[in-house]
Amino acid sequence: MHANPRANSAGRHPDALLPAEPTQRRIARELYEQVAGLPIVSPHGHVPPELLAENRPFNNPAELFITPDHYVTRLLHAHGVPLADLGVGAEALSDAQARQSWRILCEKWALFAGTPMKYWLEDVLLNVFEVEEVPSAANAELLFDHIDERLRDRAYLPRALVESFHIETLATTDDPLSELEHHAALRDDASFGTDVIPTLRIEGFIDPAQPKWQANVTALLDRTGGDDTVESYLTAIADRRRHFAEHGAVSIDCALVDARTAVLPTARLAELYASARRSALTPAEADEFRAGMLGELARQSQEDGLVLTLHVGALRNYDGPVHRRFGPDRGADIPLTTPFAEGLRPLLNEFGHDPAFHLVLFTLDETAWAREIAPLAGFYPSVYAGAPWWFLDEPEAILRYRSAVTGAIGFGKQSGFIDDTRALCSIPSRHDMARRLDAAFLSKLVSEHRLSADEAASIIRQITYELPRATFRLAHFGH
Amino acid sequence: MHANPRANSAGRHPDALLPAEPTQRRIARELYEQVAGLPIVSPHGHVPPELLAENRPFNNPAELFITPDHYVTRLLHAHGVPLADLGVGAEALSDAQARQSWRILCEKWALFAGTPMKYWLEDVLLNVFEVEEVPSAANAELLFDHIDERLRDRAYLPRALVESFHIETLATTDDPLSELEHHAALRDDASFGTDVIPTLRIEGFIDPAQPKWQANVTALLDRTGGDDTVESYLTAIADRRRHFAEHGAVSIDCALVDARTAVLPTARLAELYASARRSALTPAEADEFRAGMLGELARQSQEDGLVLTLHVGALRNYDGPVHRRFGPDRGADIPLTTPFAEGLRPLLNEFGHDPAFHLVLFTLDETAWAREIAPLAGFYPSVYAGAPWWFLDEPEAILRYRSAVTGAIGFGKQSGFIDDTRALCSIPSRHDMARRLDAAFLSKLVSEHRLSADEAASIIRQITYELPRATFRLAHFGH
Amino acid sequence: MHANPRANSAGRHPDALLPAEPTQRRIARELYEQVAGLPIVSPHGHVPPELLAENRPFNNPAELFITPDHYVTRLLHAHGVPLADLGVGAEALSDAQARQSWRILCEKWALFAGTPMKYWLEDVLLNVFEVEEVPSAANAELLFDHIDERLRDRAYLPRALVESFHIETLATTDDPLSELEHHAALRDDASFGTDVIPTLRIEGFIDPAQPKWQANVTALLDRTGGDDTVESYLTAIADRRRHFAEHGAVSIDCALVDARTAVLPTARLAELYASARRSALTPAEADEFRAGMLGELARQSQEDGLVLTLHVGALRNYDGPVHRRFGPDRGADIPLTTPFAEGLRPLLNEFGHDPAFHLVLFTLDETAWAREIAPLAGFYPSVYAGAPWWFLDEPEAILRYRSAVTGAIGFGKQSGFIDDTRALCSIPSRHDMARRLDAAFLSKLVSEHRLSADEAASIIRQITYELPRATFRLAHFGH
Repeated sequence: MHANPRANSAGRHPDALLPAEPTQRRIARELYEQVAGLPIVSPHGHVPPELLAENRPFNNPAELFITPDHYVTRLLHAHGVPLADLGVGAEALSDAQARQSWRILCEKWALFAGTPMKYWLEDVLLNVFEVEEVPSAANAELLFDHIDERLRDRAYLPRALVESFHIETLATTDDPLSELEHHAALRDDASFGTDVIPTLRIEGFIDPAQPKWQANVTALLDRTGGDDTVESYLTAIADRRRHFAEHGAVSIDCALVDARTAVLPTARLAELYASARRSALTPAEADEFRAGMLGELARQSQEDGLVLTLHVGALRNYDGPVHRRFGPDRGADIPLTTPFAEGLRPLLNEFGHDPAFHLVLFTLDETAWAREIAPLAGFYPSVYAGAPWWFLDEPEAILRYRSAVTGAIGFGKQSGFIDDTRALCSIPSRHDMARRLDAAFLSKLVSEHRLSADEAASIIRQITYELPRATFRLAHFGH
Repeated sequence: MHANPRANSAGRHPDALLPAEPTQRRIARELYEQVAGLPIVSPHGHVPPELLAENRPFNNPAELFITPDHYVTRLLHAHGVPLADLGVGAEALSDAQARQSWRILCEKWALFAGTPMKYWLEDVLLNVFEVEEVPSAANAELLFDHIDERLRDRAYLPRALVESFHIETLATTDDPLSELEHHAALRDDASFGTDVIPTLRIEGFIDPAQPKWQANVTALLDRTGGDDTVESYLTAIADRRRHFAEHGAVSIDCALVDARTAVLPTARLAELYASARRSALTPAEADEFRAGMLGELARQSQEDGLVLTLHVGALRNYDGPVHRRFGPDRGADIPLTTPFAEGLRPLLNEFGHDPAFHLVLFTLDETAWAREIAPLAGFYPSVYAGAPWWFLDEPEAILRYRSAVTGAIGFGKQSGFIDDTRALCSIPSRHDMARRLDAAFLSKLVSEHRLSADEAASIIRQITYELPRATFRLAHFGH
Repeated sequence: MHANPRANSAGRHPDALLPAEPTQRRIARELYEQVAGLPIVSPHGHVPPELLAENRPFNNPAELFITPDHYVTRLLHAHGVPLADLGVGAEALSDAQARQSWRILCEKWALFAGTPMKYWLEDVLLNVFEVEEVPSAANAELLFDHIDERLRDRAYLPRALVESFHIETLATTDDPLSELEHHAALRDDASFGTDVIPTLRIEGFIDPAQPKWQANVTALLDRTGGDDTVESYLTAIADRRRHFAEHGAVSIDCALVDARTAVLPTARLAELYASARRSALTPAEADEFRAGMLGELARQSQEDGLVLTLHVGALRNYDGPVHRRFGPDRGADIPLTTPFAEGLRPLLNEFGHDPAFHLVLFTLDETAWAREIAPLAGFYPSVYAGAPWWFLDEPEAILRYRSAVTGAIGFGKQSGFIDDTRALCSIPSRHDMARRLDAAFLSKLVSEHRLSADEAASIIRQITYELPRATFRLAHFGH
C-alpha cells in the first residue's frame, strides 16, 4: 500500500467539501489527511478492460470526457443540445466532430455549477491535464489542443494513468460469455501494479423479459455444451461464475427493476424455464422465473463465495426515441420507488443468515436507506448497505446516506464507496470526494461528542480502505 | 427593473434565515443583498384579479389575514377552533365576527411558532402595517383597530399595495370560461406598472371524475358554438388557450391526483369522449381519458407555446363534513405518495424532446425530487423541476429541495420560486424568504469551496429573477 | 416536580449532541440546562410491570443489557454472532452463558460506534454503574464482576433505579386480559413516587390475521361472560378498556402493518365477525374487519377518552427461521412504505373533528412525516404527529423529524418524546438525548432569527414536559 500522489494536488482547495465551522473543519481536515493518500479500491465500475489491455491512446478530448459519460451528455441534452451534436452514437469522431462536441461542453460549462460532474471534470482537468483555466467558448480550441497533445504522450496512456492514480484494485463489468482475455493479459503483466478484476453482469441471462435473453441462453448452452434443460442452464451459469472467479472476479452483479426474489422447487423452476424457452411465459410467470433465478444466484454465491450485488430500481431506456436511435445507457434511465423488504424476504429467509454470503443492496430510491436497507443490513449477516449510486453519488446525497443508515447499523455494515464509473480519469476525484465527505460527516460526530477523535480516525481508515475490501472479499493478487 | 423598497424593512433581523456560522453568514449576507431589492416575478399564484381591477379596500383584518388563507385557518382548526368561529364560509363578516376571528388568531399566536405562517404574518404586520408588537389577547382589539383604520387609507388599496411591493409580474389562476375582463382592464391602465396575467386552470374541463366536468364541457361548447364531438371539444380548449394567451397568459395549470398520461389515437379519444358525455365511463376509462387529455394539453402547448404546469398528488377535500359545509380549499387536502416517471412516460416520449415545450412538475411528495423529478429535468429539454409547493413552501423544505435536486441537474432546470398564494400582502415576504434561503444554500457551497463567490453571485441573480422568467417564458408587457 | 439528579452526570460531555458552531452551542446549552433536570414523562414503553412490582435484583449484566434488548442483539447478529451465543431465547442464563454473552458485547464494542445503542449503553455504564472504561475483550470479566456486584445492592433494585431516574410517569404495555395486579400493587405502595400505568395492546384481539386471534377472542368472551356475537365482543373490549382506565391507563395501542380504517354498519361488522369466528374470512374480508375494528376503537376512544396510538408499518417476524426458533421481537422486523392518508380517511371523517379524541400516529417510514402525518395533524384536532420510533429514535432521525413536521404544524401537535423501550436503565439516557436534540434544533431556529430566545425557552419546556402529558391526557396520581 503506497501513497496516492495525484489524489490531493495543488489545484483543489485543501478544505473543499469540508464544513465551514472552524472546529469541525479542523477535525475534518485531520481525518481527511489520514486517508487522502491511501490507495484506491474500486470493487465495482465500468471501465472497459480492453482500454487497459490494449493501452491505446485516447482518441481526443471529446471521446475521453464527453461521449462515454452519460452524466455529462444528459445534462447538456436537458438544456437543448441534441445528443448527435455531442457525438453520442457515432463510431469514432472526426476531428471536426470532436472539436464541436468539446466546444459545446466549454460553452455550456456554467450549467454544471453545483453538480458533481463539474467537480470531477475540474479535478481531471487540473490534476491530470494541468488545466487551471475555466473552460469557456473563448478557450475551447486552446484547451482541446492542449489536452489532445497530452493524449499522445506515453504518460497519458490508459495504463500509465491508472498507475499514477494509485488504484490497487479496479473491477470491470463484463459479459458472462467473455473469455476475459483482457483480464488475463493484464494479470500476466508483472509490471502493472493494479489488480483489474472482472464482474459477471447477469441480468441479461436470468430475466426472460430482457430482449436478448433467448439468444444469451442459447449462446450460454452452446458454450458449455449442455442440453436445453434448467439443470444445464444452472450448471452453465455456475461454470461461467467459476471462469470469472478464476480470473479474479469477486462479485456477480444484477441490475433489475425490482428486488423480487423466490426460492422455487426445482420442478417449478424447470417448468418455468421450459415455458420461457418457448417464449410462452405470462408476465407473472416471467416475474416468478426472474425472482427464482435471483434465489438461485444467491444459492450459487453461497457455494462459490461470489458477492452478489443488486442494483435495483431504474426504469431503463425510459425514452423510446433516444433508445432506438442511440442505444442503451444514454442517460434516459429514471429511478422508481423501490421497496426491498417484501421482495427479498424469500431469499433472505433461506440464505441471509450465512456470513459467508455477501449481498450488497444499491438503491436509487434513497427513502429505502433508513426504512428498509439499514434494518436489513442491521439484522442479516449477509446484507450490506450499498453506497450511494448513480443519481445519488454527489455530496449532498452521500451525506444523506451516512445520516440515514449510520444510526441504525454503525459503519461496519455499510459497503464502502463504489465509484461505478466508466470515466477512467474521474476515478481519483470520485474517491477523493468520498473521503472528504466521510471526513466531513465524522467531524460532525466528533465535534458533537458523539465519537471520540480516536474512534473517528479508526473509522475513516476502515470505511475508506478496509470495508470495501471486506465487503467484496478482496484479496490482493500481490503483484 | 427597479429596487423593491419594502422587501427588507427595518423590522426583520437582517440576518434572518441565514446560517449562524460566521463565514457562511457573511457570504450569505452578501449574496442576499445582491437580490433583496430585485423586483418580484410571480408566475403562479391565486390572487383574485377582481381584487386589483375593482381596487376596493379590504373589508377588515380578518378578511385580509384569516378567512382567505387556509394555511392560517387549518392550524387553528387543528387546535380545536371551529372553522365557523373564524368566519370561514361566511359571505361577509360582521364587525363582531371579524373581531372574534382576529381575536382568536391573536390569542393563539404562539401556536404558529416555528411555522412560515408566523414569519409571513410578522413581515406583513411589520412591513405593511408597521405593527411591532406581538399579537396577543391583550392587544387584539388595538391591533384590529389600527389595521382596520389603515385599510381605509388609499395607500392600502390593493393596487397601491402591489405597486409598493414592486411586483413586476403577477399571474392569477382563472376559470377557462372567464372573459378575463379584469386582466384587460388592468392592462389598459397605463398608470399601473405590474403585469397581471391570467393562467388557465384546466382540470375541471379534462377530468370526467370532477363533479362539474359535464357542465363545464357543455358551457365550453356553448361558448365556442361547436357540436358535441371530441374535435369541437379540443378546438374549444385551444380557443380558450388562445384567448388566454391574447390576455397575457404564459401557462396552463392542471392539478390532478396523479401524473398518468397517454398519447391516444384520435379514434380512441373520440370513443372515450362520447362515453364520458353519456356518463358511461368505467373508472379505468375515466383515467385513460384524463391521461389522454394531458397528452392533448402537451400537444397544444407545443403548438401555442403555453407552459404546462402540473400540480400533482393532493387528495383534495379529504374531509367530507368540512367539504360539505365549507366548500373546497379549506385546508383539508392531504398529500399522497406520488410517482412521476411511469405516468409521464407516454407524454415525454412524444413531446419531451422539444425545448419549446415547457413542462413544470410540482410535487407534494418530496421523495420524488431526487428520485424522479430531477432525473427527468436532467434529461428532457422540456422538463423543469418545480419549486417547493404548499405544505413544502417553508424554510426547511425549501433547503431540502435545493439539496435534493441541485447535484443532479445544477440550477438551470429548476423552476425558480413560485409563491402560489392568494394572500396578496404575503407575497413580498414569501419571495424575501426564498431569496434568503437561496443565499443560505449558496453560502454553504461557497464556504465549502464547491462554488466560487462569482459563480454564486451569478446564480442567485439567475434563480431569483431570470430563471422564473425563462421557465415561464415571460416577456414584460413594457408598460 | 423535582430535579433529576442522574440525568446529566459528570461523564457525558456537557455539550454532547449540541451543534459545534459557538453561537448555536451557547444557545443550545442554555436551552438544555432549562430542561435537563425536569422529571421524565414516559407515556409509552415496554418495561415489564412485574419487574417493578416484584422488585427482584437483575440476574446479571447480560440479562440487564443484552438479552432483552433487540437493538443490541440484532446488530451483533448482523456481524455474524449467533443469537443463541448471546443467550437470546434461553429461559435464564447460567453464569457461564451470561459471561459469554457479556464478553461478546465487550469484544464487539467498536461495532456500535455511531449508533444510539452505544450512546445509551455508555450513559448507563457511566451514570448508573460508574464504569468509565471503554468495554473491551480485556476488561470484559472485570466489568461483568463490577456490575454483577452492584446488582446485588439494594440501590440497584428496579424500583430504586426508577426512583433515582426521577420518572414521574411510566407507561407499560399490557395484555388486554391482564388483571393488572402489578399496577395495582405499585399504586398501593405509597412510598413509590412513580406512576406506573398500563396500556392496552389490542391488535391481537382485532386482527383476525394474527395467529392467536381466535384464542384471544374466546378468552376475552370467557372473561366477560358474553355470547359469541359482535355485540358481546365489542362490549368485552369496552370492559377491558374500562378495567385498564380504572388502573390508570390513558391509552390503547395498536400495531398493524397498515393504517386502513373503516366505519362499518353494525350488520356488516356482525357478518364479518361471524365469518372470522368460523375462520371463513377471505384475506380482503379480514382486512375489512380489521379496518372496521380500528373504527370501533376510535368510537370507543371518543366515549372513554383513551388516547389511541397507532404504530404502523413494520413487517413483523420477517425472518421465519429466527421467529420459529426464538419467537417474536428478536430484531427481525423490517419497515415498509407506509401510506396514512387514504387508510385513515374513513376514521378521520367520522371522529377526527373531536378534540376530545386523541390519535397519535407513529411511523417507520419517515417520508410520511412531511407528506401525510403533518398535514393530518395540522388539520384534525384529534391527530398528533408521533415522535420518531424504533429504527428512527436516533439523533439524525430525531432532527429530521423536527425539520419535517415543524414548518407545517409548529410544535403543539407533535406528540412529545416517547422512549418506547424495555431497557429500563436506558430511559434517562433516551430522554436526555431527546432534550439535547430539541435544544440543538431550537438553537438553530434562534440563531437564524426564526424564533426568539424567549419563545424557544417556552417551547423546550412545553415539548419536554407538558406536551407528552397533554397528548396522552396524563393526570398525576399525586402520590
